[in-house]
Amino acid sequence: MERMRTIEIGEHVGERVRLAGWLHALRRLGGVSFVVLRDGWGLAQAVATGEDELAPLARAGAGPESVIAVEGLAVRAVQAPGGVELREPRIEVISAVREAPPVTLGKRELKASLNTQLDHAVVTNRHPTRRAALRLGAAAVAGFREALDARGFTEIHTPKIVAAATESGANVFRLDYFGRPAYLAQSPQLYKQIMVGVFERVYEVGPVFRAEPHDTTRHINEYVSLDAEMGFIADHFAVMAVLRDTIAGIVEAMRARCEHELALLGAELPVVPAEIPHIHFAEAQELIYREHGVDVRGEPDLSPRDERWIGEWARREHGSDFVYVTGYPTKKRAFYTAPDPARPEYSNSFDLLFRGMELVSGSQRLHRYEDYAAVLEERGLPPEPFAAYLEAMRHGMPPHGGFAIGLERLLMQLTGAPSIKLVTLFPRDVNRLTP
Amino acid sequence: MERMRTIEIGEHVGERVRLAGWLHALRRLGGVSFVVLRDGWGLAQAVATGEDELAPLARAGAGPESVIAVEGLAVRAVQAPGGVELREPRIEVISAVREAPPVTLGKRELKASLNTQLDHAVVTNRHPTRRAALRLGAAAVAGFREALDARGFTEIHTPKIVAAATESGANVFRLDYFGRPAYLAQSPQLYKQIMVGVFERVYEVGPVFRAEPHDTTRHINEYVSLDAEMGFIADHFAVMAVLRDTIAGIVEAMRARCEHELALLGAELPVVPAEIPHIHFAEAQELIYREHGVDVRGEPDLSPRDERWIGEWARREHGSDFVYVTGYPTKKRAFYTAPDPARPEYSNSFDLLFRGMELVSGSQRLHRYEDYAAVLEERGLPPEPFAAYLEAMRHGMPPHGGFAIGLERLLMQLTGAPSIKLVTLFPRDVNRLTP
Repeated sequence: MERMRTIEIGEHVGERVRLAGWLHALRRLGGVSFVVLRDGWGLAQAVATGEDELAPLARAGAGPESVIAVEGLAVRAVQAPGGVELREPRIEVISAVREAPPVTLGKRELKASLNTQLDHAVVTNRHPTRRAALRLGAAAVAGFREALDARGFTEIHTPKIVAAATESGANVFRLDYFGRPAYLAQSPQLYKQIMVGVFERVYEVGPVFRAEPHDTTRHINEYVSLDAEMGFIADHFAVMAVLRDTIAGIVEAMRARCEHELALLGAELPVVPAEIPHIHFAEAQELIYREHGVDVRGEPDLSPRDERWIGEWARREHGSDFVYVTGYPTKKRAFYTAPDPARPEYSNSFDLLFRGMELVSGSQRLHRYEDYAAVLEERGLPPEPFAAYLEAMRHGMPPHGGFAIGLERLLMQLTGAPSIKLVTLFPRDVNRLTP
Repeated sequence: MERMRTIEIGEHVGERVRLAGWLHALRRLGGVSFVVLRDGWGLAQAVATGEDELAPLARAGAGPESVIAVEGLAVRAVQAPGGVELREPRIEVISAVREAPPVTLGKRELKASLNTQLDHAVVTNRHPTRRAALRLGAAAVAGFREALDARGFTEIHTPKIVAAATESGANVFRLDYFGRPAYLAQSPQLYKQIMVGVFERVYEVGPVFRAEPHDTTRHINEYVSLDAEMGFIADHFAVMAVLRDTIAGIVEAMRARCEHELALLGAELPVVPAEIPHIHFAEAQELIYREHGVDVRGEPDLSPRDERWIGEWARREHGSDFVYVTGYPTKKRAFYTAPDPARPEYSNSFDLLFRGMELVSGSQRLHRYEDYAAVLEERGLPPEPFAAYLEAMRHGMPPHGGFAIGLERLLMQLTGAPSIKLVTLFPRDVNRLTP
């Protein structure tokens, strides 16, 4: 008999079906035993009314996480996962496991410390809740790509081994490249800008590496960056419009592909308004002074508390979980950020806040070689490490801009996970290099 | 006026349209000048009949690769790119370039040595032929994903910084991870197998790093690997069936998305037969002896010449550019390869040959902890670096297998490019770490 997936048995009530997966749990209740099978998509239970039916497990000494197949009659049962269970089961052991798993997987929640969960991620990632969060990540990436594919973007893969630590020398991983020093790319920023000269609109989904010695709930040292960059823009508002559609595409893809996972996590996806409200950095500071009596005017950046207040304002005044803050002070942003032509002390940059927390950053970039030469000089950055980048700028670049989304950070915020490491397959932090 | 893309003007004949892009070439023929504009998608020409129309270029001193906009009347013209040209053009300079590009881009072919092309890749990637090859790569990746998404696979992103050089210690890049030694992943092999325990069917598109000191036309030190792995298989033939559909999906995506690019390159895509013929390694050696009188029976591997002969056989006997060779000797394949239960000296492995050259490798893997313990011992590999991998195997893994496709190698073979570096955005070799 052809094996089917657990999530398909609802369409086969009244038929005998074959499932295959892991022995998620075995529950004995008086004379009845529930064999819960987990496959790559969901759970299903088989009801055994005698020891005969369980004998194959006993004979093989097959405990939790054994790989098994179960054939049985699909019958409606309100209390079963998916509303259907298997009766008269015939169990077959494919690969017996006699050792107990490091963490019990067969319960609704994973009961183990964060460190234990992460130490044994090869097993704990199998738990339905962990897995649901990871699968939401895959849906988010699919949504990112679909939104940008539909808008004429081309996918690129830029090098991760680079010759120079260009963006912020202190926080890069250094490696030995055939006897020469090299670095791991902190972002595809410079390459994606260069590729605007080729394809105009590009995106990349790839790893970035940050050598910040962190062990927090919000940082990891290797993460997946969703980067986009586009040419021929009037200013940063063109980028913000594409970012709005991209976030909407991500949320939509999660909703469409992960109904089961969202229900399992009890996660509620936000509504992305057709137009995300925006407020200028200086206005936001005025607003905070007016509403909260705290004078942050003149501060070069927004504090987490400021962002929270702006989030509350957007919720109250615009009914939106999302709000753009634009025009951050030029000197606080990366050197490639384009200043506002009317007020050069502010830049054509933005942050997207989600429920009062920064979710995405972006900006219009400089595009004239002369402007780059000037800003590097001004910031005391030597031009040599930027040779290729400057070559692109010297040979004709249009006004352009883009944004970068940290996948795991996005997932953490959208699902309300308590640590970014719980939505990362195999996280890396200052102490953690395995599994 | 809203700017449109060059490839769209065919639908706007008789209207005034606005294009934006790069000054690809300026050709003067008597009293008429052709302004060829290149945008991210194609080329379009504008015909200037007087110096007035060109004056904005002259005033700005704008040479090739200047960023410009052109408004004009779209008129049918057989000899123009796309069959339509702009008349009565109004040219606007967005960003003037006064320096000549390092390599002339405005000709049909890039006339420069490979090294010059690669040294100036930030500019030469803009040439229509280079760009077409790179865009075919994006289409190939999209086809890979679509084929696997449709078959229930989940996309994953596994760590690139790893604690141990597990697969082949000699060819890894070493880095400093907060004072500890670490390595760049040579492949997602072990992680993708581990993730079969979570999602059953997974794929990854990501960079892999090989520290082989190469500078050849077929090797690069960082490339994009398209990896897939699936559980609950009977044997390697289940993997080969999915690989066949994946290759068909890749070719189909290139055909559907890159009509213009394929025409420009004069590349002809192969037909992927509904069933790819296969021949066992030992039979292939017999065949070579019979047909060519060369006795390679007992050799542990196939030579390039052997592969060519097998490719010719598949073409002649099966009318196929593709052929699977199965059952490579177990001791020549990676330790995780499952042996053929009937003849353990041969393995449940395969190579996919395309026109007589290896394109993809794959196999069924071992899935029992005991088998891993035995094979590591047999090969003299210490178990410690494999701790996480072995933990997954100890806690229940189904029979599984998979394959890995090198994106740039695939592109080179499908398009007939003379060097893999010409189908790589910014290649890395033993001498080349920039741009």
